[in-house]
Amino acid sequence: MKEFDLIKHYFSEQSVNRKDVIEGIGDDCAILQPNEKQQLAVTTDTLVAGVHFPIETLARAVGHKVIAVSLSDLAAMGAEPAWVSLAITLPSIDEKWIKDFCSGVFELCEYFNVQLIGGDTTQGPLSITVTAQGFTPVGKHIPRGGANAGDWLYVTGEVGDAALALQVIQGKIKVETIYQETLQRKLDFPQPRVLVGQVLRDYASAAIDISDGLAADLAHICVASNVGVNLIIDNLPLSTAMRDTLSLDSAYKMALNGGDDYELLFTVCDDNKVAMETAIANTGVNITCIGQLNSSHKITTLLNGEHIYIDLQGFEHFS
Amino acid sequence: MKEFDLIKHYFSEQSVNRKDVIEGIGDDCAILQPNEKQQLAVTTDTLVAGVHFPIETLARAVGHKVIAVSLSDLAAMGAEPAWVSLAITLPSIDEKWIKDFCSGVFELCEYFNVQLIGGDTTQGPLSITVTAQGFTPVGKHIPRGGANAGDWLYVTGEVGDAALALQVIQGKIKVETIYQETLQRKLDFPQPRVLVGQVLRDYASAAIDISDGLAADLAHICVASNVGVNLIIDNLPLSTAMRDTLSLDSAYKMALNGGDDYELLFTVCDDNKVAMETAIANTGVNITCIGQLNSSHKITTLLNGEHIYIDLQGFEHFS
Repeated sequence: MKEFDLIKHYFSEQSVNRKDVIEGIGDDCAILQPNEKQQLAVTTDTLVAGVHFPIETLARAVGHKVIAVSLSDLAAMGAEPAWVSLAITLPSIDEKWIKDFCSGVFELCEYFNVQLIGGDTTQGPLSITVTAQGFTPVGKHIPRGGANAGDWLYVTGEVGDAALALQVIQGKIKVETIYQETLQRKLDFPQPRVLVGQVLRDYASAAIDISDGLAADLAHICVASNVGVNLIIDNLPLSTAMRDTLSLDSAYKMALNGGDDYELLFTVCDDNKVAMETAIANTGVNITCIGQLNSSHKITTLLNGEHIYIDLQGFEHFS
Repeated sequence: MKEFDLIKHYFSEQSVNRKDVIEGIGDDCAILQPNEKQQLAVTTDTLVAGVHFPIETLARAVGHKVIAVSLSDLAAMGAEPAWVSLAITLPSIDEKWIKDFCSGVFELCEYFNVQLIGGDTTQGPLSITVTAQGFTPVGKHIPRGGANAGDWLYVTGEVGDAALALQVIQGKIKVETIYQETLQRKLDFPQPRVLVGQVLRDYASAAIDISDGLAADLAHICVASNVGVNLIIDNLPLSTAMRDTLSLDSAYKMALNGGDDYELLFTVCDDNKVAMETAIANTGVNITCIGQLNSSHKITTLLNGEHIYIDLQGFEHFS
C-alpha cells in the first residue's frame, strides 16, 4: 500500500490551478465552488485494458485517451470542461508507466484548463475510470433528444480512422507506411471537440459524440428525438488513408460502424444552418453535412441518389 | 455489448428524483443545478473484488458498500450527499447479481436522498468506481488539517469490528455463533455517519473517516494539522463481540490497525466540547473521547495512565 501512496505524488504534479478549486487532491473530498449562473455537466467513463485499448498501448496514449473520452462527452453536451477525478487500478507499480500515463493526462488537462481534483489508486487488473465535470449556461446544454424532422445532420472531422487503425494494429489490414503513424495517432490521441461543442450550444438541436460508431450514435439521436433520417453515404467524410486503403464500399461500412472516433454528430434546423457553418469555420474544424432528419422513424441510406442497403451493425438497438 | 446495455435498465429503476437533477441517466452527461450558496464536495473510490471485498461477498452488500464508502468520505467533510455516478466493470452478465447489487445501491441512496446520475458499464474483472457529490455551506467543510494542540480527539461508534469480521470469514479467528451475523453486517453493511458529519460542521476542527484504520487515519490528521496526540488506549470503544473474542491487547491492536470501519475520527477545541456532545447526542450515535492533541509531533499512547508501545502498522507514513 505504501508504494501505491507514492503514486499519488505523480498525480499532484499538475500545473493547472483553477480558482474554483477550494481544496484539491489530499483530503477525503475535493471542495469546489461551482459557477452560480451555470449548470454542471457530469460524465463517467471506464477504460479497461484489452477491452477499450490494446494492452500494448503507450502509457501516455492511455492517459491522453481516458481524459479525451470524458471531455468528448462534455463537448457533446456543449459543456466547458473544468474538473476531472481519476480512479486507476494497476496490477503493479511501474514508475515509468505511471509517469508517462500522467504526462498524457496532464498535457490534455493543461490544454483545456482542466484540474485533476482527486481520485483513487488501487491494485488489480489495469482499468481507469474518469469522472469529468464542466459547465453550461442554465438551459443551454445540447441534449441528444432535441432533433426535429427537417433538421440537417452534420459530423466533425473524418470518421472510421480509429477503427481502421485498430485493424492495422491487429494485423487484419495492411496500410501504406506513410499512413501508419497518422492512423495510430487517430486511435491513441483522439482530440475531443471541446470548442466546437461550446459553439454549437447556440445552434444545434441535438448532439452526441461518436464513441460507439456513427450509425449506432445516430440511432441514439433518432430514438431520443423520435425522428428518422436520410443518410447520404456519399457525403461521409473519409480520410485519404481510408480511401487509399479500402474499397469505397468497405470504407463506408467502417465509417458507419467503427467506434472510437470521438467526432461530434449533431443536428441543426434550417434557420441556423448558415450561422452555424460560419461560427464553426472560426474553430478551424471541418464539418460535413451528411443527411437530413425526417419523421419516418427509420434510417434510410442514399448512395449516388439511390436507396441502398448497408449492414449497419450499430443499429442493433434501433427499433 | 447489447447485453451490457440491458444492465442500464436496472440502474434506471431508482425512486429518488431530485429537483437539482435537470437531466439524469441517458445522455452523454448528466446536467445538474448546484445550490448556488453551497460548495461542492466530490470524492471517488474504487472497490476491486478480492482486494477491497471478499469475492464471495453478497451482491447486495457490494452495492451497499460502494455507496457507503463514498458517502463516508462526504460525511468526513461535513457534506450533505446529493449525487452519485457509478462505473461498474463486470466479467459477465449475471442478472440476479446485478439486481441484488442495485438493491444494495438504491436502498442506501433512497435513505439519504441521493440520486444516481450516470455511469458506465464495461466488461472486465469485477470492480466498481463511485464518484459521489454533496454540498457544504461556503467555507464550512471540515478539513483534515484544521486540528490544533489542545483539541480533543473523538471517534464515533466502535472500532475494529470490520477487521475482526474479515479474519472470521478468512477462518483465522473463531467467534461465538451469536456474534457472527453482527460482525458480518459490520463488514458488509457499514453505515456512513452522514448526519454526524453535518452536525460536526459547526464544532469540529478536523475530521476523517476510518477507512485505512484508526492509527493510520489519525496519523493523516496529525500530519495535515502539524500536531501530535496523546491517545488513551483504554478509551477505545470496543464491541462486546470484540471483547469476548480477543484478549484486550489483541483487541486494542485490531481497533487501532483494522481498516474498513467507516467511523468518523474528529477533533474539537475545548470551548466546543460540551456543545458538540449535546448536538451529537441528538443524532443517536455514540461518540467516545480517545485522546487530546498536543504540539509534540508524535503519537504517544497511554494505557492505565502508563505510556506503552503498541505496534501501529498504520503509522508507516508518519514521520
